[in-house]
Amino acid sequence: MGAINTLKIQIMETAYFNGKFVPKDEIKISPDDRGFLFADGIYEVVRWYEGFFYDMNSHITRLKRSMRELRINWPDADLFSSIATELIELNQLESQPSMVYLQITRGASRRSHCFPSPEVGTTSYACAWGFKPDNQSKETGIKVMLKEDIRWARCDIKSIALLANTLSFQEASENGLKECIFVRNGLITEGSHSNIFFVADGTLFTHPESNYVLSGVTRKNILRIAQESGIKIREEAWQENRIRFISEAFISNTSAEITPVIELGGNTVGQGIPGPVTRLIRDKFDNEIKAFKP
Amino acid sequence: MGAINTLKIQIMETAYFNGKFVPKDEIKISPDDRGFLFADGIYEVVRWYEGFFYDMNSHITRLKRSMRELRINWPDADLFSSIATELIELNQLESQPSMVYLQITRGASRRSHCFPSPEVGTTSYACAWGFKPDNQSKETGIKVMLKEDIRWARCDIKSIALLANTLSFQEASENGLKECIFVRNGLITEGSHSNIFFVADGTLFTHPESNYVLSGVTRKNILRIAQESGIKIREEAWQENRIRFISEAFISNTSAEITPVIELGGNTVGQGIPGPVTRLIRDKFDNEIKAFKP
Repeated sequence: MGAINTLKIQIMETAYFNGKFVPKDEIKISPDDRGFLFADGIYEVVRWYEGFFYDMNSHITRLKRSMRELRINWPDADLFSSIATELIELNQLESQPSMVYLQITRGASRRSHCFPSPEVGTTSYACAWGFKPDNQSKETGIKVMLKEDIRWARCDIKSIALLANTLSFQEASENGLKECIFVRNGLITEGSHSNIFFVADGTLFTHPESNYVLSGVTRKNILRIAQESGIKIREEAWQENRIRFISEAFISNTSAEITPVIELGGNTVGQGIPGPVTRLIRDKFDNEIKAFKP
Repeated sequence: MGAINTLKIQIMETAYFNGKFVPKDEIKISPDDRGFLFADGIYEVVRWYEGFFYDMNSHITRLKRSMRELRINWPDADLFSSIATELIELNQLESQPSMVYLQITRGASRRSHCFPSPEVGTTSYACAWGFKPDNQSKETGIKVMLKEDIRWARCDIKSIALLANTLSFQEASENGLKECIFVRNGLITEGSHSNIFFVADGTLFTHPESNYVLSGVTRKNILRIAQESGIKIREEAWQENRIRFISEAFISNTSAEITPVIELGGNTVGQGIPGPVTRLIRDKFDNEIKAFKP
């Protein structure tokens, strides 16, 4: 048998690190970095729609808020949009659905629970990657688990202290479920990396902004779209023991947008198929994206 | 004026990284490390007493438990003692009080809430440094703050998801206080990096082992010493609204051992000086250390 020579074209991945665009492989995070030692940092994720980022301004606003809450001073938050665009270009991702991830930590310093004094420079890191959107789940809906919310009490900060989130999502995943939805004190808060909405009696419900949920950018736009569509909205937490009264449910986040939930903690939601309010909002959201396209 | 040439003798710090002893400066943590992205890792800290580590076995047992709880598989946990000793020697710390820090993360993989599949190698890192024990605080006691416990519900795992701990300790520190003690549902749990004990009517109280406190190695040895000394022990949480009934309080951890608390959340404890039970236990602990010395 003849040998077959395969030519692998390796595109070097380029990332952003402390003000520079560098090969990702060359990035050296210090073991003294407070992101590595204490989860002392924040992050943002934006989705690239083959030509633009959707609602980048809201991501930058939230990024600044997260930093303010933790007193992390990265002066270049307003450059996020251009950093993200540059990463898309450098990695030749212009024409495919992609994500850009940005993380800022309080910097590197000999381990101590106290903030470094004097202050040290933050660590700023961003990278980009192409992905294949899960259109199947958006269309047919997903099954999700319900679990006691074991996270901390500042879920409004988009921090990298995500251990509880990863453990919970992993548990869902091993049970063949697509998300883990949290319940705190009997109230449904949000998912491990999504917000959750319910429809009951034609009204759209979601947990109000509070220290127990992240103020999702997609969440905000869903509320706007619902309002524009004349859908009645109540920003109120839904009780776990009233799941049988919901007719529809869906989750939202930046990467997966709006995904119908057809089973929640073992309970079939409505008819077990994506409901009309969910489909209306999802389709309006999709149309907004399409309208943006160059 | 003549120039003065100063000769700086720089001792290169040596650390442990993935099975090797290397110059710490050369360590390169990947930005894909789950310790950096998700706080998906655990740690241990042991104190070097100019010749030995105190109760290393308990630290190794806890290390294994933390890993088991997170399903992190680092096969070299039993080598921690020899790794730590090697770090002391390589950094010429034999004859000074020192700390050895060990951190194990789930390893580096493209960012996803799911555990990497197939599993990737863990990241193992350890370093050592000399320090000056705060004997003043051990002698005269410290003032500490009280604050709502905003941490997650798995404080029994010695994870690196320590953002809440650092924020709380920083707040205490900025108020001139030496520790932040947490209160959850009206019950005093533990400090940001210590356990806490109370004495009331001659009985020693501390929060029972649970998901809300770390099972401190020093905590365990204090309970043993108290028992050997005929002190009545109750592993029960103390209510915040009953602080006025305590006559003594102290905190414990591996680095600072046993430190009397003379003010708690603005309330003077007992006579505002270290009490007899605290001093007895502290002195017996110190004597155990002295007896160990070669």
